Amino acid sequence: MADPQSPTAQPSTAQRRPRERMVYSAAQLIRARGVTATGVRDVVEHASAPRGSFQHYFPGGKDQLVGEAVEWAGDFAARWVASYRETADAPSPDGLFAHVVQPWKDEFASRGYERGCPVMATAADLAGGESAVNPPLRRALARWEGAVVDELVGMGVPADRARSLAVLMISALEGAIMWSRVNRETAPLDIVVAELAPLLRAAGRAGDPPRPD
Amino acid sequence: MADPQSPTAQPSTAQRRPRERMVYSAAQLIRARGVTATGVRDVVEHASAPRGSFQHYFPGGKDQLVGEAVEWAGDFAARWVASYRETADAPSPDGLFAHVVQPWKDEFASRGYERGCPVMATAADLAGGESAVNPPLRRALARWEGAVVDELVGMGVPADRARSLAVLMISALEGAIMWSRVNRETAPLDIVVAELAPLLRAAGRAGDPPRPD
Repeated sequence: MADPQSPTAQPSTAQRRPRERMVYSAAQLIRARGVTATGVRDVVEHASAPRGSFQHYFPGGKDQLVGEAVEWAGDFAARWVASYRETADAPSPDGLFAHVVQPWKDEFASRGYERGCPVMATAADLAGGESAVNPPLRRALARWEGAVVDELVGMGVPADRARSLAVLMISALEGAIMWSRVNRETAPLDIVVAELAPLLRAAGRAGDPPRPD
Repeated sequence: MADPQSPTAQPSTAQRRPRERMVYSAAQLIRARGVTATGVRDVVEHASAPRGSFQHYFPGGKDQLVGEAVEWAGDFAARWVASYRETADAPSPDGLFAHVVQPWKDEFASRGYERGCPVMATAADLAGGESAVNPPLRRALARWEGAVVDELVGMGVPADRARSLAVLMISALEGAIMWSRVNRETAPLDIVVAELAPLLRAAGRAGDPPRPD
């Protein structure tokens, strides 16, 4: 898998093998139109994969494919979160949140509003039932959350608070992604970043070691 | 339509006429399983409506039905927001947010995690494309937002800030609903209420008239 420059980057399909391409294509189609509207045939076609290969790679059928797609998305999101420490001179919780939101602003500004978050799309269609996709969906969200918690704890935020802030940050982002797509504007993303900045900054300062007078 | 005691209350179907029942049923099925998985036949059956009546009431087909369902949901949410002022002795932005979140806690605790938000479910399946449902979806979200803005402005929050806070509150709620359903726990709802309370309280105090010394 290509090193993620952005969670919404698109490595060329030729770089990946059919199995990886199908997982990637499933994630892209799901986040555009939902799980139910994403057929296995659409995925095989989008991935330019050999028609007969699907059953070979995914004996568990569509549930297996969707589960792997959502876990791929969760891992991708987690890696993007973890990349913050390499880019920030003075890491802070508010800087982390801006970093997490930025690729969504870039995606919408450059590529339009077709595609949202695969985790949200999967949850909207499946979380209410007893789908076999629900355990991978939980793992995907947990990994994304865990990556945010790790960064915050690394900044000195106590673990319990870090968990709460991770839930707040990811929840606000998910809602703002939805809002941006509905209204075809990036303003909701800017708003949640701006509104949460003081709260997040204060949480980071509380983790600072006491300064000598 | 029954006066909403809660946005998730269920007036008995006998209280409403077939057309209203179909709109209500569509909203309930959509928020459980998404738009794509909700067939017109499912709605007619859920609503106990005469089979031939669908075409009569909804000549625009499924798009018309889904559009009306999501607008019904937006109106329902807006009325619930507006009911806050009648229940609060000392209205505050943080109290308003707790009021907006409470029915979701009640729904999940008492009825399980089957059903999420119809606005999010519709956005996840349709907002990426050019569906005829998108204009009603935008109106639904705008009315919900407008109701929150009205309450906040009534508390003295400046209009621009009120709009930002409405986006933040509804976004955080939507993400927390998703998270609660994925993990089958209400903790994310409690977390966003607790984390946003100081920020919202401060925004309300900023709107207070200056006190005489």
